Amino acid sequence: MKIINYKDVLPTVMDSEKIKNVVGRVMLGKEDGVKNFCMRLFEMGPAGYTPLHAHNWEHEVFVHSGQGEVFIKDAWYSLKDGSAVFVPPNIEHQFRNTSDKPFIFVCLIPSGAPEL
Amino acid sequence: MKIINYKDVLPTVMDSEKIKNVVGRVMLGKEDGVKNFCMRLFEMGPAGYTPLHAHNWEHEVFVHSGQGEVFIKDAWYSLKDGSAVFVPPNIEHQFRNTSDKPFIFVCLIPSGAPEL
Repeated sequence: MKIINYKDVLPTVMDSEKIKNVVGRVMLGKEDGVKNFCMRLFEMGPAGYTPLHAHNWEHEVFVHSGQGEVFIKDAWYSLKDGSAVFVPPNIEHQFRNTSDKPFIFVCLIPSGAPEL
Repeated sequence: MKIINYKDVLPTVMDSEKIKNVVGRVMLGKEDGVKNFCMRLFEMGPAGYTPLHAHNWEHEVFVHSGQGEVFIKDAWYSLKDGSAVFVPPNIEHQFRNTSDKPFIFVCLIPSGAPEL
């Protein structure tokens, strides 16, 4: 078992040409003995974004707070607290913050995919 | 793909001797083409609780809002917004609301387990 608040998990800063103003945390992962899927939490500052990319595993996302958008395939869609997103495998996608508050969401992936 | 806010998903009322004041929603499930794991959202009113039970699949939980507790194996643990919980398979567990506000969390399960 494991119980943890995201505020107690050390964040990994993710900042490069392709990803801006994002910190990631592995909430429940292989080190915790989870077998089937991994929970990460991402916190995005103002003007933050994740890379535009595709990969052969899916995402299941739940937005905890803030306001943002997800690009899937060919369009942007609005997200806010309480939104859920399914991004199927091999579909181009990207997340971005559209407010001046933190945009915070959990993103689950199947085991075997890179945890962060 | 799928994008939906939990407020737009019809809730299923769950109320019996073993489960009180809980509504469940399948956010991302087999009808949406998800292959590996399913996201449900539970909203628990004051004094609400889920059954004390065990089953051969795990839970990964993320608390969206409110305050509650989870019983795992032999003790109760406090939960609040931003808490994550891993309940391994075959461990007795139960969730309950400990405030007078809604206690809202997503709970993910591997495919094959009952979605609600």
